[in-house]
Amino acid sequence: MFALFLIIILGALSIAYGLWAINDVMKRDAGTQRMQEIAAAIAEGAQAYLWRQYITIAVVGVVLFVVLIFLLSIWVAIGFAIGAVLSAAAGFIGMNVSVRANVRTAQAASQSLAGGLDVAFKSGAVTGMLVAGLALLGVAVYYLILTRTLGADPGGRLVIDSLVAMGFGASLISIFARLGGGIFTKGADVGGDLVGKVEAGIPEDDPRNPATIADNVGDNVGDCAGMAADLFETYVVTFVATMVLAAIFFAGQANLETMMLYPLAIGAACIVTSIIGTFFVKLGQDQSIMGALYKGFIATGVLSIAAVAVANVALFGGFGTTMEARVPIIGGGVDAVSFTSLSLLLCAIIGLVVTGLIVVITEYYTGVGFRPVRSIAQSSVTGHGTNVIQGLAISLESTALPALVIMAGIITSYMLAGLFGIAIAVTAMLALAGMVVALDAFGPVTDNAGGIAEMAGLPKEVRQSTDALDAVGNTTKAVTKGYAIGSAGLGALVLFTAYTADLNYFISAANEPGSTSYQYFAGVTPDFSLSNPYVVVGLLFGGLIPFLFGGIAMTAVGRAAGAVVEEVRRQFKEKPGIMEGTERPDYGRAVDMLTKAAIKEMVVPSLLPVLAPLVTYLVIYLIAGKDQAFSAVGAMLLGVIVTGLFVAISMTSGGGAWDNAKKSFEDGFVDKDGVKHLKGSEAHKASVTGDTVGDPYKDTAGPAVNPLIKVTNIIALLLLGVLAAM
Amino acid sequence: MFALFLIIILGALSIAYGLWAINDVMKRDAGTQRMQEIAAAIAEGAQAYLWRQYITIAVVGVVLFVVLIFLLSIWVAIGFAIGAVLSAAAGFIGMNVSVRANVRTAQAASQSLAGGLDVAFKSGAVTGMLVAGLALLGVAVYYLILTRTLGADPGGRLVIDSLVAMGFGASLISIFARLGGGIFTKGADVGGDLVGKVEAGIPEDDPRNPATIADNVGDNVGDCAGMAADLFETYVVTFVATMVLAAIFFAGQANLETMMLYPLAIGAACIVTSIIGTFFVKLGQDQSIMGALYKGFIATGVLSIAAVAVANVALFGGFGTTMEARVPIIGGGVDAVSFTSLSLLLCAIIGLVVTGLIVVITEYYTGVGFRPVRSIAQSSVTGHGTNVIQGLAISLESTALPALVIMAGIITSYMLAGLFGIAIAVTAMLALAGMVVALDAFGPVTDNAGGIAEMAGLPKEVRQSTDALDAVGNTTKAVTKGYAIGSAGLGALVLFTAYTADLNYFISAANEPGSTSYQYFAGVTPDFSLSNPYVVVGLLFGGLIPFLFGGIAMTAVGRAAGAVVEEVRRQFKEKPGIMEGTERPDYGRAVDMLTKAAIKEMVVPSLLPVLAPLVTYLVIYLIAGKDQAFSAVGAMLLGVIVTGLFVAISMTSGGGAWDNAKKSFEDGFVDKDGVKHLKGSEAHKASVTGDTVGDPYKDTAGPAVNPLIKVTNIIALLLLGVLAAM
Repeated sequence: MFALFLIIILGALSIAYGLWAINDVMKRDAGTQRMQEIAAAIAEGAQAYLWRQYITIAVVGVVLFVVLIFLLSIWVAIGFAIGAVLSAAAGFIGMNVSVRANVRTAQAASQSLAGGLDVAFKSGAVTGMLVAGLALLGVAVYYLILTRTLGADPGGRLVIDSLVAMGFGASLISIFARLGGGIFTKGADVGGDLVGKVEAGIPEDDPRNPATIADNVGDNVGDCAGMAADLFETYVVTFVATMVLAAIFFAGQANLETMMLYPLAIGAACIVTSIIGTFFVKLGQDQSIMGALYKGFIATGVLSIAAVAVANVALFGGFGTTMEARVPIIGGGVDAVSFTSLSLLLCAIIGLVVTGLIVVITEYYTGVGFRPVRSIAQSSVTGHGTNVIQGLAISLESTALPALVIMAGIITSYMLAGLFGIAIAVTAMLALAGMVVALDAFGPVTDNAGGIAEMAGLPKEVRQSTDALDAVGNTTKAVTKGYAIGSAGLGALVLFTAYTADLNYFISAANEPGSTSYQYFAGVTPDFSLSNPYVVVGLLFGGLIPFLFGGIAMTAVGRAAGAVVEEVRRQFKEKPGIMEGTERPDYGRAVDMLTKAAIKEMVVPSLLPVLAPLVTYLVIYLIAGKDQAFSAVGAMLLGVIVTGLFVAISMTSGGGAWDNAKKSFEDGFVDKDGVKHLKGSEAHKASVTGDTVGDPYKDTAGPAVNPLIKVTNIIALLLLGVLAAM
Repeated sequence: MFALFLIIILGALSIAYGLWAINDVMKRDAGTQRMQEIAAAIAEGAQAYLWRQYITIAVVGVVLFVVLIFLLSIWVAIGFAIGAVLSAAAGFIGMNVSVRANVRTAQAASQSLAGGLDVAFKSGAVTGMLVAGLALLGVAVYYLILTRTLGADPGGRLVIDSLVAMGFGASLISIFARLGGGIFTKGADVGGDLVGKVEAGIPEDDPRNPATIADNVGDNVGDCAGMAADLFETYVVTFVATMVLAAIFFAGQANLETMMLYPLAIGAACIVTSIIGTFFVKLGQDQSIMGALYKGFIATGVLSIAAVAVANVALFGGFGTTMEARVPIIGGGVDAVSFTSLSLLLCAIIGLVVTGLIVVITEYYTGVGFRPVRSIAQSSVTGHGTNVIQGLAISLESTALPALVIMAGIITSYMLAGLFGIAIAVTAMLALAGMVVALDAFGPVTDNAGGIAEMAGLPKEVRQSTDALDAVGNTTKAVTKGYAIGSAGLGALVLFTAYTADLNYFISAANEPGSTSYQYFAGVTPDFSLSNPYVVVGLLFGGLIPFLFGGIAMTAVGRAAGAVVEEVRRQFKEKPGIMEGTERPDYGRAVDMLTKAAIKEMVVPSLLPVLAPLVTYLVIYLIAGKDQAFSAVGAMLLGVIVTGLFVAISMTSGGGAWDNAKKSFEDGFVDKDGVKHLKGSEAHKASVTGDTVGDPYKDTAGPAVNPLIKVTNIIALLLLGVLAAM
């Protein structure tokens, strides 16, 4: 009981930090009248979009809420609502700070680089801490209410179903936010660039471009609110799935509740270290912005090892405590795996190391100065086609190392503490989400700050400062994406493990002599063997979903961008004064149009991962019965994870590499023959094509695969709960 | 015995057809002196490349031959050699006919379209019939020698290992030919276009371009010899794997040999129908070339149903014969599946239907006039970037329907006759390979004919005829690629089934009381369940291979193309008379350089699928022991199949769509606003970029994934044989 309260108190620290940081950011100088006008336009557009998105989701959410009451119970439905509302809140508050911090960053950057960094990072940290804090608090407080106020059995179905439903609530926001936000931001970016840079020949963020406000709105709704919802979801589902595994593996044992609280304790410990880490972000003597951010990240990582060790001692009384996970076997009986609390600590450290390695690998593949980005820049010299070919080559290649790291993480943590060890490693990986989101949410703020500086006509030096901040923001955004997809894949793997464990649990319980519970599962014998053709079919069906989904998302961006191009062309034609600077473009129309397009385009693909497990179950059930239906659904979940991981990594890393290959030309790129290619050269134009292609890759389709993977798995887990209640 | 002889006689019909068709083609008029010179240059380059490729492979092959003698036996090694030599022979003879038919097609096309079609198709049919015929004869004759001359047990290890080794021999040629040929052809194509069309502003196939002969050489070594080796391999490995399954499932039963001959009988029946089908290819009243080819294809398909039914009656005595496949179970005992000969016939029909559906779907995704290609053409209007974005969207989307068809095929054939039913369906699919390769090998001949017409300065009308033939060639090439990858995926799935069945067989045999055979497998209990983390790791590792391989292949093309660009630039600079037409370019140097580049680049990636199963086995063996090593290898095989299928389909269909989107502009593309974009417009230039990107996608990386999938699986099967002999 004390442990749970302590977890909640530590979790609440994140809220306190958030309030303090918001207050600190808001106190700063908001700049000139013109700057404030621009910022207000961005804020207005972003809020209008987010409201509209949330209202659309709410319609779906209310229906699902009612369905859950009937299928399961009011408490499960409330869990669902909590997940959705907290995720929305984290995104909404974070984004609202973001759209206020952008102008203040621009103003602070006009004084000093350190000042700009301080405001931008602090505003990013608000989103980061709210994501981790609200996610942890949501799970912990609702667990407290269910077990203490309602007196439910900690490892019982009510608790498990309610927590799984909370994950589903978070998923609902996440898939819509990632997809809708992604379509909005890249529709604006690609469309605006095409008609502005290419056709009209005006620079990025030029106030004469009617799509420029929409582009800045997009950064906030995509990179800030979208990423927040994505990681909020991964956080919740990973923690929930680990708790479900604990409830099954330690059922009937004295340490059941301790094991269920362990992931929460790791989360609480890392919130404290993340908050401490934010204070390490200070510009050093070398003026390296990336160095400052890494200082904070590394401090958090190292302190987290110590903090998790402390949590271990607090919960288990030391490192030598042994425990036994009893994994139910379908045939009956259990497979007992013994390990010590030290093994669990080592698993958590593995999770932290995996995080670190993925960050390093992603930076290698997307950072300026390394072979991959240089090779794309070099290939731009021979034209658009070779630029895209080399970018695709890098995008495909970039999947290998992260996948190997993930495999090594799975094997080592499994060897230390079985399936529960894998779950703990992933939990620790996610526990750093606060710090990682802080790094990411820094990106749109600096991007906006640059846009505002440009539009408000601030002196060139200010733009140089914001550009330096923005360049780092690009890297942190790419790195965070690597982390987001890696953790989403691993989180989904924990969900998948929970699916098989839960299924075995229901079958075992239903088959007990004289049992009257879970009779739907009586006599079911799923065959998860790879030699079962239904498993092969399930893997293939799961495998096709990320591809189909990616295709739909890319098409949607193309369509939205096309609409922007037409709108901007129309404005240029109807208001010839825009280009001369005598007439003001109608920014609002572009924002409004994109809002409608994004909301419309996001609905159908979002249903794909929701329906896939249900359709698989139903179709295979009708063809081959229950056993094969459960087998095929399980295989489908793994199929989504396997191809989803590769599709998402290739898209996000490839897109990041294209982006920075383009940036290589800003100060002139020296090719292998020693020829220097400047901005505006043919080689630079080819690199712009690559960047355009990379945009929807890295900011729409790729990141939207993360929630896709998780949603599919959480729906399957929920399906089991519903069938068990039948 | 009679059945086997009949199969061999029918197989030999293909050789007879080939000799007749070669004679017929060679009799035709080879055109003017200039045409013959050009054709000779192409032939010389193609032969030089192929020799060099085969010599390189021979070095590897001789080493493997010796290794196989020591690890298994001389008969196994001979099987390996037969597979490699016959595959090489099919490619070599086919290509040699191709490089003689090209000029005769150009000449015939100058008289009539029907004449051009006749020569081009007949030369393609030579390659097609040789592929199917030599593959069938190789398997059947060696089976005859092993069982009759040497008196080996039909279902014994010597026969199985020797046949599997034959598959491996075919694989060796295939992976090198696909990759080497692919790098050569697209290095020449992309490089030649970049420097010719884009920089120098001269049309395709212009004789002033020093890379133009290399481009035509590439068509032959890539599309003709490469595709032939690929489908030869799929044919052999599918037939072999089906025979291995028959040997295991019907071991000790009276009908063992009948079941092993059944796939060969299907192959023989379809060779006859394919030969008949070639005579249906005649230009009708409507002058539709595609229609003429489809007539032949449909005739073959429909006749094949009847022919397989006849084979059924001949082998089984009717449709009501029941049989029982006894699938060994790891724990001991067997899982008996009963079905009738009618069920097997239905499975074969399913295989034919799957072939038909994949052809239709691929044509939809790559054909001019349908939504996908139109959408890419439309997106070219807004620029290079949007063209590539839409092309990638289509490429991702295009995987869904073929995968669904494959899944439906797996489920229905499994329901009819268990795992053996799936194998028979795939066998029937492959039995059409003769006809399909004929359609494909038609492509490079017409492509070359067009090139020769251009370079020899033939009248414009001739070029129009060859262009019409070439346009159809593009479609048939795309369609064949869809068939090649679909059948490769399914063939590999049969190999995977053979891996698990073979493993179970060894374990059961080793565990029998008092058994002294296969003691390496005694007590082994692999766990192929999806809930085993080593299975998850295996799936992920398998999943990464096609991505990494694709990345390496794309990079290789980029590098080869870059080298071509530099060589051509050098020639233009050193011989300024080339552009004025007063000096002759040095075509040979470009060919020679590409030959070296392709051979060098193909070696390392080709080792990836060979080493992957061995490394997986070794690493997991050292970490977690035999049980998990076998489990992880099995999962890896399936992982390669799952992602490989999607990666390959997306690349080949996407590339085909980009190609035809570009072609949409040749006669002017009318966009959705009614504006007509002609050749040379900005939209057309954007479509050329997409086509350039699509080139290595559809002709190098995508098709090379086919052998990748199969090689990985055949190596694993061979590994089992080697371990069993220890």
